[in-house]
Amino acid sequence: MNLDKLDHRSIAVGDVVAERTFSLTRDSLVRYAGASGDFNPIHYRDDVATSVGLPGVLAHGMLTMGVAVQPVVDWLGTNGWVADYGVRFTRPVVVDPLEGASVTVVAKVGVVGEGTARIDLTVTYNNETVLGKAQVQVTFR
Amino acid sequence: MNLDKLDHRSIAVGDVVAERTFSLTRDSLVRYAGASGDFNPIHYRDDVATSVGLPGVLAHGMLTMGVAVQPVVDWLGTNGWVADYGVRFTRPVVVDPLEGASVTVVAKVGVVGEGTARIDLTVTYNNETVLGKAQVQVTFR
Repeated sequence: MNLDKLDHRSIAVGDVVAERTFSLTRDSLVRYAGASGDFNPIHYRDDVATSVGLPGVLAHGMLTMGVAVQPVVDWLGTNGWVADYGVRFTRPVVVDPLEGASVTVVAKVGVVGEGTARIDLTVTYNNETVLGKAQVQVTFR
Repeated sequence: MNLDKLDHRSIAVGDVVAERTFSLTRDSLVRYAGASGDFNPIHYRDDVATSVGLPGVLAHGMLTMGVAVQPVVDWLGTNGWVADYGVRFTRPVVVDPLEGASVTVVAKVGVVGEGTARIDLTVTYNNETVLGKAQVQVTFR
């Protein structure tokens, strides 16, 4: 853990540059539906989710993907930007109506380049990976 | 153009499986801020955007990325899911306070596998690419 070592000029492979646990709630999903236009009811209706055999209402994958990169964006601040981002959607995030879902992100340096770095995200929920091969290519100013 | 040829069992490389133009408005950005927790004011304040040298208020990259994949999700319906998704953020989308921003997505079959396909997105705004190397790996049921 090197959360105090935020200077991008001194990062090394394996350094943790950001770590955060965020809560996805049913509110978040409704807001994302409004933002994206994705009103698939499996993201806000328990009856529909159950009727199609799901364990419950699921977070939109793209919302999970979006919040997962936020700690890296915040770490970068004005020192750089996300140039490239990709993930594998390995498991759905079930959002409990009362508790929401607690998702943890650990952002670790995977590769250091010339003015660039690849940051690898470990994104878990209930101790299981929800986004696999989550890689953020960043460019520094 | 093969927009009527929606059956995933008969797709071939080069087929266009979906095409859509969507409008990002300032409303969309505010909703996405609320959904994601990303309240960077460059996404809703003209004064801040201008003060940091931007041509105007920008869409969150993750919102653009999210809406860009929606036509593929809709095309898939219950026939499959997005297993993997990655993009390069090549240009920002400036969202006019009155006009919003009109973003066009063309989703074309790039690779056909065994029960899978790679769908390549062309995502443009003002005739310029905003998401490069936008690749969606899909798995069919």
